[in-house]
Amino acid sequence: MTVFLSVENHHACPSSKLFPNSQRIYVQGSRKDIQVPMREILQTKPAPSIYVYDTSGAWGDPNLNIDPQKGLPRIRDLWLEKRASWIRSERASVDEFDNHVLKAHSSERITQLAFAKAGIVTEEMEFAAIRENRNRTQFFEKLQALEPTVRRQFLSQHQAVGFESEIPQYVTGEFVRQEIALGRAVIPLNINHPEAEPMVIGRNFLTKINANIGNSALSSDIHEEVEKLLWAISWGADTVMDLSTGKEIHRTREWILRNSPVPIGTVPLYQALEKTNGKIEALTWEIYRNTLIEQAEQGVDYFTIHAGITQSSLPLIKERLTSIVSRGGSIMAAWMQHHGKENFLFEHFHEICEILRSYDVTVSLGDGLRPGSLHDACDQAQISELKTLGELAKIANDQDVQVIIEGPGHIPMQRVMENVLDANHYCDNAPFYTLGPLVMDCAPGFDHITSAIGAALIAWRGTAMLCYVTPKEHLGLPNKNDVRDGIVAYKIAAHAADLAKGIPGAQIRDNAMSKARFEFRWEDQFNLSFDPLRARSMHDETLDKASIKTADFCSMCGPKFCSMKISKTL
Amino acid sequence: MTVFLSVENHHACPSSKLFPNSQRIYVQGSRKDIQVPMREILQTKPAPSIYVYDTSGAWGDPNLNIDPQKGLPRIRDLWLEKRASWIRSERASVDEFDNHVLKAHSSERITQLAFAKAGIVTEEMEFAAIRENRNRTQFFEKLQALEPTVRRQFLSQHQAVGFESEIPQYVTGEFVRQEIALGRAVIPLNINHPEAEPMVIGRNFLTKINANIGNSALSSDIHEEVEKLLWAISWGADTVMDLSTGKEIHRTREWILRNSPVPIGTVPLYQALEKTNGKIEALTWEIYRNTLIEQAEQGVDYFTIHAGITQSSLPLIKERLTSIVSRGGSIMAAWMQHHGKENFLFEHFHEICEILRSYDVTVSLGDGLRPGSLHDACDQAQISELKTLGELAKIANDQDVQVIIEGPGHIPMQRVMENVLDANHYCDNAPFYTLGPLVMDCAPGFDHITSAIGAALIAWRGTAMLCYVTPKEHLGLPNKNDVRDGIVAYKIAAHAADLAKGIPGAQIRDNAMSKARFEFRWEDQFNLSFDPLRARSMHDETLDKASIKTADFCSMCGPKFCSMKISKTL
Repeated sequence: MTVFLSVENHHACPSSKLFPNSQRIYVQGSRKDIQVPMREILQTKPAPSIYVYDTSGAWGDPNLNIDPQKGLPRIRDLWLEKRASWIRSERASVDEFDNHVLKAHSSERITQLAFAKAGIVTEEMEFAAIRENRNRTQFFEKLQALEPTVRRQFLSQHQAVGFESEIPQYVTGEFVRQEIALGRAVIPLNINHPEAEPMVIGRNFLTKINANIGNSALSSDIHEEVEKLLWAISWGADTVMDLSTGKEIHRTREWILRNSPVPIGTVPLYQALEKTNGKIEALTWEIYRNTLIEQAEQGVDYFTIHAGITQSSLPLIKERLTSIVSRGGSIMAAWMQHHGKENFLFEHFHEICEILRSYDVTVSLGDGLRPGSLHDACDQAQISELKTLGELAKIANDQDVQVIIEGPGHIPMQRVMENVLDANHYCDNAPFYTLGPLVMDCAPGFDHITSAIGAALIAWRGTAMLCYVTPKEHLGLPNKNDVRDGIVAYKIAAHAADLAKGIPGAQIRDNAMSKARFEFRWEDQFNLSFDPLRARSMHDETLDKASIKTADFCSMCGPKFCSMKISKTL
Repeated sequence: MTVFLSVENHHACPSSKLFPNSQRIYVQGSRKDIQVPMREILQTKPAPSIYVYDTSGAWGDPNLNIDPQKGLPRIRDLWLEKRASWIRSERASVDEFDNHVLKAHSSERITQLAFAKAGIVTEEMEFAAIRENRNRTQFFEKLQALEPTVRRQFLSQHQAVGFESEIPQYVTGEFVRQEIALGRAVIPLNINHPEAEPMVIGRNFLTKINANIGNSALSSDIHEEVEKLLWAISWGADTVMDLSTGKEIHRTREWILRNSPVPIGTVPLYQALEKTNGKIEALTWEIYRNTLIEQAEQGVDYFTIHAGITQSSLPLIKERLTSIVSRGGSIMAAWMQHHGKENFLFEHFHEICEILRSYDVTVSLGDGLRPGSLHDACDQAQISELKTLGELAKIANDQDVQVIIEGPGHIPMQRVMENVLDANHYCDNAPFYTLGPLVMDCAPGFDHITSAIGAALIAWRGTAMLCYVTPKEHLGLPNKNDVRDGIVAYKIAAHAADLAKGIPGAQIRDNAMSKARFEFRWEDQFNLSFDPLRARSMHDETLDKASIKTADFCSMCGPKFCSMKISKTL
């Protein structure tokens, strides 16, 4: 099975190929230009449609004809226009694209956090709220129609533990505002990335997932990276991090930003290091600052900044089995050791925040000392850095910069929960964003699975976003198929957590699948699944005749032994 | 990558192909014929060897030349010989193999449970104990050598929470005996399967996994099933269930038993139904009883028996979305409904136990009403059956028949733990054996992952054995690659749980992997992994030159950005 999703072949709509019998719909908000995309999965009548969250943006709309050389429609231009007396300038950028730059005056606070604190519900907050309710509408319509006596039973069947928690029955723009104002949620959207569709990251919302793309010095080119972006958002990545470290780093990023409907994150340190030709000791605050501005002007939505690794934490890694496994962390540690100075990101954090808030770039505080093995999990180095991240989070919040806290890594199951509790405690409940964690070290080739276990657990406990891990982790740069496997594994982890958190309506798709199973609607089963083409191809392997797709059995048990078929007679 | 493991090509040792740079070793017990196999993974000097549990039996010994047409060496003949004044008979069986049958006199109690209650440590108990200690020896040698002050730190690094639990520091035959006597563990070994190597299933031991094989009316033949058996045990299946429902069911099973070093389980109801040509209403107790005896004489080690689904539980399924999803459960329900009578397995359970104890067949009490969807999870039907299983478990235990309790199924994460607690409560801590559970319904094609999440969680909470789920679940009969993916996913779940349970030494392999990672010993990383060939092939995809296998970077970050390389300078 091959699905072509070529940048050249831009008339193709990837979603329609990957998700047969689905169609794009929009839910309109309080104004005409708040058009929130969802994917409607059509079932065989009379089974009702199921609506799912859709991250594919304009790429997923078959009525739009997107040219990747021109980029996506700028849906937020009108919203941004009225908000401030912007500083407008031009930048030297990639020829193909617009080089117009917005920046806020230092006297103006234009971040989503600033608006939230001021009690203003922005268009972005409303947009994000509508997305969160994808299944809730159906859920509550059904609930309303029930007799009070059976309603309780219905709720317990839906495992809706969230009804007693902070998770609301229905998400409103005002609720999104409150969560952002409290620092418990962020909407990572640079004012220079008006192509992006707003989404919210926070523990009282649907669990989000991030997919990493990016070339390294050894592999990959620009077209391949844009293809990976489209691939990732078609499968359901809520944000994408461009971790390129190779050549043409600026141009690759420009192509990615102009074509991305989801927030884009980067680690600016990687490009700063390219500017010194890889010489760590030659890094300076000035080079880094210029890189921050360059990327903020391009429209990067969030930056991972390794400001928490400090001189005082360095001695703590001596006890470790795998020292530092964060690229950014190891670079800053080497710099500090060479110069005998404090981490310049820590020293200049106030100035960093001033830059970020002018563009509403969210800061994702990198865990440079995250454990890279079970042996190093939850050690002093990790916790000491987490405390520093808490101090930095406070500084950022005071400056109205939105904050995410990054977390591990490699953590055995029994210590997963304490990681969330510690992060919440030290960082005042800022959204937690973890890499897995992997719950064991010895299954390279399957680390999408070792980490999906940890990811499901940690998201259930309140982690807001999960950075995916592909089967290639520890072995090499992932290809498209690895990206697909990684994203689906993480959509599974996130959905398992959303069910366990009791997000209202989260179970509607599962119930629809189960009903389709019991009624032997094979086509509906494929179409409702996270990867319809794979489900279909696996079914085809043993029973590939079209007529069999309506048969009341499969090859697992054969016609005589199908429990569902037998139990239909009961 | 193709690995041939053909029945015809029986000179090949599958393990040596699947696990390069490993060798078979044996640990000798208190007598010469207690030779416990382990796999020694050799590392680059001076890194020490790592010893791992080995389920491949004689097939994994390159010095033995096994002919599948003759079957494996009968390692337990001498142990069994002296234990009783056996009833010896002949059976009409498959031509190729010995047709000699052992049976105990009704006055003699020869089960492992009977010996355990009598205070006798059998050879099987000692053998199983030695297997459990695979890494403990290394662990305690290291521990002994430490200063008392650093010992505590070392233990905390190993996450050894088990030191405060019932899990012993070192497993002895006597400990295995105690656990069996308490009904908390079983050694499923039919006296007519002397080829099998003893292993113990219980919550205070390493988590075990089961792989299902078996043909259906639509696919698969005998040779393929034997190949699947060898494939499954080479990858690490601790037991194998033969769920064949198609033709030549007796002969297929004979081939499997004679070639299996691991316990074999079956669902005798499937063959009984074949005897009535699939007519459920024509099933009788006599047909079933004869099938039990036929399979007990062949040497099946444990039987799944759906005796817990009764007339009183049938009305409870009316509320369900997916009714009954257990094949055995649906067959018995249809039989009960047709005849308006009580389940004959429930009615004749005493007699069943009398048969089983004559051969030391373990009873695995089937959960005919396990939920097949999140909607049906933990409902009255499931719990009502579990209570009945508890009553049956008591009957079996009183008759010295070893008992396992089967569990779900489809359970959302937040309800996983209560399933273990309920099973322990109602069934007096008999070993719990679950199918996953899947923590969501809507990812067919990835149910090895949706269920590995639930499996890791439920095993951590004390489930003793996990029945694997392959990527093909809900879609078709798994092929060899699906079996491999399913087993590796479940080895991951089981190992994650063993780490979380704090089994001493469980982390030694992870630590060795992490050390190999930090030292860029790529070959050792491949060899230490759960699937060396896959890890290697993934690494080869981007860097396939042999010289690169000693390089201090990989294609993920490239040479300049490798955090481990950089942090080596610190």
